[in-house]
Amino acid sequence: MTNDTRSEHDLLGNRDVPADAYYGVHTLRAVENFPITGIPISIYPELISALAAIKQAAALSNMELGLLDKIRGDAINAACEEIRAGRLHDQFVVDVIQGGAGTSTNMNANEVIANRALEILGHGKGDYGHLHPNEQVNMSQSTNDVYPTALKIATYHGVFHLIDAMAVLRKGFERKADEFKDVLKMGRTQLQDAVPMTLGQEFSTYGVMIGEDEDRLREAALLICEINMGATAIGTGIASHPDYARLVCKHLVAITGMPLVTAVNLIEATQDCGAFVQLSGVLKRVAVKISKICNDLRLLSSGPRAGLNEINLPAVQAGSSIMPGKVNPVIPEVVNQVAFEVIGNDLTVTFAAEAGQLQLNAFEPIIAHSLFKSVSHLREACLTLEKRCVSGITANRERLRAYVENSIGLVTALNPYIGYANATAVAVEAHETGRSVYDLVLEKGLLPAATLAAILHPDVLTKPQSMLIRE
Amino acid sequence: MTNDTRSEHDLLGNRDVPADAYYGVHTLRAVENFPITGIPISIYPELISALAAIKQAAALSNMELGLLDKIRGDAINAACEEIRAGRLHDQFVVDVIQGGAGTSTNMNANEVIANRALEILGHGKGDYGHLHPNEQVNMSQSTNDVYPTALKIATYHGVFHLIDAMAVLRKGFERKADEFKDVLKMGRTQLQDAVPMTLGQEFSTYGVMIGEDEDRLREAALLICEINMGATAIGTGIASHPDYARLVCKHLVAITGMPLVTAVNLIEATQDCGAFVQLSGVLKRVAVKISKICNDLRLLSSGPRAGLNEINLPAVQAGSSIMPGKVNPVIPEVVNQVAFEVIGNDLTVTFAAEAGQLQLNAFEPIIAHSLFKSVSHLREACLTLEKRCVSGITANRERLRAYVENSIGLVTALNPYIGYANATAVAVEAHETGRSVYDLVLEKGLLPAATLAAILHPDVLTKPQSMLIRE
Amino acid sequence: MTNDTRSEHDLLGNRDVPADAYYGVHTLRAVENFPITGIPISIYPELISALAAIKQAAALSNMELGLLDKIRGDAINAACEEIRAGRLHDQFVVDVIQGGAGTSTNMNANEVIANRALEILGHGKGDYGHLHPNEQVNMSQSTNDVYPTALKIATYHGVFHLIDAMAVLRKGFERKADEFKDVLKMGRTQLQDAVPMTLGQEFSTYGVMIGEDEDRLREAALLICEINMGATAIGTGIASHPDYARLVCKHLVAITGMPLVTAVNLIEATQDCGAFVQLSGVLKRVAVKISKICNDLRLLSSGPRAGLNEINLPAVQAGSSIMPGKVNPVIPEVVNQVAFEVIGNDLTVTFAAEAGQLQLNAFEPIIAHSLFKSVSHLREACLTLEKRCVSGITANRERLRAYVENSIGLVTALNPYIGYANATAVAVEAHETGRSVYDLVLEKGLLPAATLAAILHPDVLTKPQSMLIRE
Amino acid sequence: MTNDTRSEHDLLGNRDVPADAYYGVHTLRAVENFPITGIPISIYPELISALAAIKQAAALSNMELGLLDKIRGDAINAACEEIRAGRLHDQFVVDVIQGGAGTSTNMNANEVIANRALEILGHGKGDYGHLHPNEQVNMSQSTNDVYPTALKIATYHGVFHLIDAMAVLRKGFERKADEFKDVLKMGRTQLQDAVPMTLGQEFSTYGVMIGEDEDRLREAALLICEINMGATAIGTGIASHPDYARLVCKHLVAITGMPLVTAVNLIEATQDCGAFVQLSGVLKRVAVKISKICNDLRLLSSGPRAGLNEINLPAVQAGSSIMPGKVNPVIPEVVNQVAFEVIGNDLTVTFAAEAGQLQLNAFEPIIAHSLFKSVSHLREACLTLEKRCVSGITANRERLRAYVENSIGLVTALNPYIGYANATAVAVEAHETGRSVYDLVLEKGLLPAATLAAILHPDVLTKPQSMLIRE
Repeated sequence: MTNDTRSEHDLLGNRDVPADAYYGVHTLRAVENFPITGIPISIYPELISALAAIKQAAALSNMELGLLDKIRGDAINAACEEIRAGRLHDQFVVDVIQGGAGTSTNMNANEVIANRALEILGHGKGDYGHLHPNEQVNMSQSTNDVYPTALKIATYHGVFHLIDAMAVLRKGFERKADEFKDVLKMGRTQLQDAVPMTLGQEFSTYGVMIGEDEDRLREAALLICEINMGATAIGTGIASHPDYARLVCKHLVAITGMPLVTAVNLIEATQDCGAFVQLSGVLKRVAVKISKICNDLRLLSSGPRAGLNEINLPAVQAGSSIMPGKVNPVIPEVVNQVAFEVIGNDLTVTFAAEAGQLQLNAFEPIIAHSLFKSVSHLREACLTLEKRCVSGITANRERLRAYVENSIGLVTALNPYIGYANATAVAVEAHETGRSVYDLVLEKGLLPAATLAAILHPDVLTKPQSMLIRE
Repeated sequence: MTNDTRSEHDLLGNRDVPADAYYGVHTLRAVENFPITGIPISIYPELISALAAIKQAAALSNMELGLLDKIRGDAINAACEEIRAGRLHDQFVVDVIQGGAGTSTNMNANEVIANRALEILGHGKGDYGHLHPNEQVNMSQSTNDVYPTALKIATYHGVFHLIDAMAVLRKGFERKADEFKDVLKMGRTQLQDAVPMTLGQEFSTYGVMIGEDEDRLREAALLICEINMGATAIGTGIASHPDYARLVCKHLVAITGMPLVTAVNLIEATQDCGAFVQLSGVLKRVAVKISKICNDLRLLSSGPRAGLNEINLPAVQAGSSIMPGKVNPVIPEVVNQVAFEVIGNDLTVTFAAEAGQLQLNAFEPIIAHSLFKSVSHLREACLTLEKRCVSGITANRERLRAYVENSIGLVTALNPYIGYANATAVAVEAHETGRSVYDLVLEKGLLPAATLAAILHPDVLTKPQSMLIRE
Repeated sequence: MTNDTRSEHDLLGNRDVPADAYYGVHTLRAVENFPITGIPISIYPELISALAAIKQAAALSNMELGLLDKIRGDAINAACEEIRAGRLHDQFVVDVIQGGAGTSTNMNANEVIANRALEILGHGKGDYGHLHPNEQVNMSQSTNDVYPTALKIATYHGVFHLIDAMAVLRKGFERKADEFKDVLKMGRTQLQDAVPMTLGQEFSTYGVMIGEDEDRLREAALLICEINMGATAIGTGIASHPDYARLVCKHLVAITGMPLVTAVNLIEATQDCGAFVQLSGVLKRVAVKISKICNDLRLLSSGPRAGLNEINLPAVQAGSSIMPGKVNPVIPEVVNQVAFEVIGNDLTVTFAAEAGQLQLNAFEPIIAHSLFKSVSHLREACLTLEKRCVSGITANRERLRAYVENSIGLVTALNPYIGYANATAVAVEAHETGRSVYDLVLEKGLLPAATLAAILHPDVLTKPQSMLIRE
Repeated sequence: MTNDTRSEHDLLGNRDVPADAYYGVHTLRAVENFPITGIPISIYPELISALAAIKQAAALSNMELGLLDKIRGDAINAACEEIRAGRLHDQFVVDVIQGGAGTSTNMNANEVIANRALEILGHGKGDYGHLHPNEQVNMSQSTNDVYPTALKIATYHGVFHLIDAMAVLRKGFERKADEFKDVLKMGRTQLQDAVPMTLGQEFSTYGVMIGEDEDRLREAALLICEINMGATAIGTGIASHPDYARLVCKHLVAITGMPLVTAVNLIEATQDCGAFVQLSGVLKRVAVKISKICNDLRLLSSGPRAGLNEINLPAVQAGSSIMPGKVNPVIPEVVNQVAFEVIGNDLTVTFAAEAGQLQLNAFEPIIAHSLFKSVSHLREACLTLEKRCVSGITANRERLRAYVENSIGLVTALNPYIGYANATAVAVEAHETGRSVYDLVLEKGLLPAATLAAILHPDVLTKPQSMLIRE
């Protein structure tokens, strides 16, 4: 039935497009060409909104330059506003993994905006004589400036959502650091008993780690604020007005609220993926740190009876289908796995970035897909870790203290008083006999009891101290 | 309204489950605990079917051992059959990235099967007094044998689907190799002109590469046929009958048709991820090769006027939103990107495998997710590459021949006749003057014209040859 | 002084070479061109020997074909024998990281062999009119078949040395498995107490893992026995005799004792790095496994007082410059680090392999360097791990048994008798009260004392068992 | 003979050390324990100097605090000065890959400095009663603050040497950009002809890329200026004076001239490898960019007759052992390979960083080894690329111009005048007929000749332009 489809034309000929589709022939061919994951780009709403913001900024600039008439410009503007408000996202149907350097995504946007604008103007979909996806919606633009700019805008927002989640997690650790600030425990290096510290000190480090990574992410996010709008095809700005690059950045800043700047060298900016590689590298760093933290949490809570059993993670589900009563550290485990995924994604980004050739990197779609996954999964992982694990952690204070009192590592505090060689002899004897450092030092007459007690007092063991005695 | 939910109990207490849900309290908690990707495990139907096959095999074995009565056993059996036929997959709702070593996936299966079996027996969902997810459905099993075995069964099928797709692609290259077998062209090493060959020889290598990788995949697939059913919790077989491991493997072979064998050392098999690492490494190898092939296709088709322009890839969509008439190699490009993803996935698998501790690897869910993505995306990539690109490739025969005739590399064929030193002098002069090797050799009287023509005849340039003359 | 240098000529002009150098102008330029690591290829003696073996096999073949006279052929043969016996290796001076697809390595070999052969024939070094590096030593060859073949031969030997070292390590674990076969301990999954096993079972898994990897390495080594001698420049065999490929393989088999075969498609074999990628992937697998084993050893020996303290690793050095008496698991730690290096090397190999273009992979030198490092470092790591760690491991038997007796995980063995739900209730109560499973089961009257004791008897806990009682 | 050795003692007992060795028993055991690579840490002179700088700063601080007497302090100071001047480096003999978190490296430094100081004081080597490696040289220190601080100092210097080399390379590209600023050529996206640009623009992008990476490295270098001296064993500062951390940093700033600061949270700083991961990530970014640039150089210089042949790389060596006259892009190729190595090293760093546990990362030695290699190899690669390749690049101006004049891509410049649809029709016809865009536009009467010539004038094609005509 002819009502169900409309015919559209491109350089390959005519194709029937569903009559009610806002997308057109270019999108249709792309959907057929890239049946890889089955996941459409609409899964990333911030990408869709970013595309609309760019098309809007371009239209405003072209109007300002007198290149686009007000009637069509206003219609494009209105269509973009709708998309930014969340409408028509279901029309963005190209696969997240696609060839063509993002052209299909850009054309999907051009077509949806053109057809919605045509409707607004009272024309039928596909009636491109009145308003054309390439000639008006894409005016002064190329995929090669639109697409990377859209990725940057979308990623920027995603990164700040991630930073927010990391702050939640950081504060969770800071609260625990405060709660446990007086809980004495043994520190460990290389999994061997080292010297005393507090559980609060241990948890405070996790907060510091995450806080530092928030800073690193903010720095990396700033780098992706350098855009190449106005570059058009390869950075020379062909088919664009000399004032356009400045104008479109101005409008895009106004629309997005981001501190966007136009790259000084647009040819470089068009082919370079350095900012994405940098950001991905920082996300990898975040993954490494959070994975390390989760490894620690799982280790400290090991047991309950044949493990370290220093802390308890909240039970959130039964741990085993066969072992009754078993509770596992499932929340840190899922976070570890997100970290492993992010590290893998970073490698994908690295490969894709290295594969760029001459004036363009054709592989930005997989860079985008990888970054979007990393950012959103890390965000969920941080929120989950705080909410379902960190916030409910409790300490087994007696066990922690017993480890310290029973420890050979205490002997380190005696170094400045009895020397490394004497201390080594005490340590070896303690290990071989199972006796305590305290008893052995007294027995050997190496220090008087009062001095020894002062040196080993918990209040002074966990920080630097002046010599209590001088020979 | 009480009709809408039912109450279920686990070690954490009571929870309301939707009344019509086949899954139960364990699944419910898992969904809440792992809000990472929003993608449920039902996206992998072969995993769901594999779980059902295992539960079915276990029930049959337990019945055979007299541990499970016929009524409940038959009901479990029937429920599993339904799931293997594709029903109830929407009840498998746990996130693909999950903590807990797959326990949530296994419990999801136990609960869905138990509740469907209860229905079959005329009981209400959740009426576990009659048939219990852990006691009957999971009898003689642990997540730690069920889950890796399910991954192996699902992956095995996926790998053979991939091999089928690779064979399609291989045959596509073989057809082109035959079609182009007489098309003379210049071979290139290090992107510099080397010596002549045929375009058919060039395309035949792609077929051979893929064929070899099919073989490697088959070998890797065989390794994942070693299962650990009967291991239960850690491989010691606790809570299972001595004959169970043998029986369950027998039934699973019958159900799946796979050449499954029980590992000799079940403790090793329960903690080891070597077979997954191996398979992932082979998938990486496939990705490397296919990426290299796509790089070549893009290079050989570069141009049309300022590139090598040796072959034409079929145009499948307009290439640019700004450059009219531009056609890009979008199909090889999307395949390159899948390859980069697969290489990244391999790293994720590597990290997850290395992170296993003591008697179990808790990170198998991300291994599964990574492998499933790699296998299915590679499959689509191979099919797409053949259908939308390779099958339609044409050769620019004149240009290819002109490259050969104009080439300095021909001089290599003269090595045995005039020596490397003379040949070098000819080559240098040809390069500096722009003249042909043929003319220079004649002019210098290095070889008579007839001999020279015989040596440089296309029929002999592309294969080894005996000396045509002997001094 | 003219005696100190001799003048040599190539296509770039004349250069003075040290008079006593066996290498010539090509090598000289290569040394200047690649000042990357400062490490010469002579660091890999098996590579140098492999090059000599190939040159020898080629000379024998060329003599057999009547292309090379006996006098010069014998001299080349003799020179190669000397190099294979370990002489002149110091003349192989090109950097391990080099451009040019190995041409500089091949020319280094051609020049050293030519000059040594000239000496044998009574001529001066550099007197190439009598015997030329390219015309006689390199006759019927190209870097593009010589170099990858040399890598394969060198790697093959390296891999079998690694397998030998792995066998040493495997046997070390097997001895410990036997020594500890009656030592009962708690198994752990996800770092949480699981169910009992023996320490012997735990150590036996390490032996099995390594044994499996020996098998995988043997398979991968077989793949690198497919060589491309006779391919010459790009695989078409240009400038070689039709019988040469067969002959050179025959001679090379005789010289090396390896099961070498000539690839069916020499064009494919010349450009493809699949066998190296596969081998590197298997080395990565070995690294993953050995790293996991070392992680376990460090975990099980953690303490001595605030850790698991199940086993003792032999003390091999003082562990701390500040903490007296501290002993650290330095041997597993160094092995972990080798594993991390090998995993990184695999990525380097992957990148290099993917970057191959058209008829050649120009990046084989970094593939070679990466593989050689991985193979030799893994070998040393395995030997060191066995000699300085595994062989001296002792068990803390009382502690291990106490963990079991005190464990809640024992309750799993009761599943078949009291059901998962009852067992869960017992486990929860044991955890909350600190009481033993044994006492609670008796107190609740769930099982009679004799039955309970029978079920929990150490002899039956670590393997499958028939039901001891039937209701 | 007793004169040849001296006996030393540690917690494992007595050992004979070579009498003339400055290192002692701890170093001896470490050499035996870690026979992995055969490469001693002295291969990194900046690491040895950094260790000496730290020991010097510590001695000065301890003297200032009254903890170390002037006689022994001065001797330590003098010994450190000598090492920083390059002496005794051959006494640093521990393998670059070592277990123990760097303890062996730290003890090697302690012993060499102690024995040299003993000599200065007139005592024999090993006469530790007068001055002890641990008690005086290592006073107030632990490996766990000394070693990471030494890595940071050494890496910092290495990074700035790399930045210097990158600046050399950048300036090389900038000179070429200037030289080629008027050379018109076709830009390419996705390897397909795009639109015109200048060769100067193309080369300028390479300069910009490298310049940006210099900035990123400077930022990353700043992060590694945060040190943890004063942390001692785990960051609590045990066995150190409260004023020590401040003093040692002050002295170290004075000695090294670096903007070092003491971390706010020393416990976090002691276990965290974030700064190394960040730096390694930036090095990976540098590698990705430089590899991309080298890929481009190889592509643009492909040919000479069957390639793009746009530029000529200087010939630096004969390219083939069989193909006379062949010249290959060996310098970019070696740089590509360094890039692949750096990317692999980054993965090693990532694995090692993630594997840190609790209060320390035991795997810093492999992090150090990987970073040192990456930094130094990249440095040599940059210098080599500039000196032996970029500085001698020439352009094939006629060929470049011919590509432009013959190009279909010119049609993009007509978009604003004749519209995307008309332009597409022209492009398609040009492609099918082989005719020029210019002729077709004129023939179709789409634009008058004068206008067309003005639009396609080389001066305006490579930058944005206002509309030349308005309808």
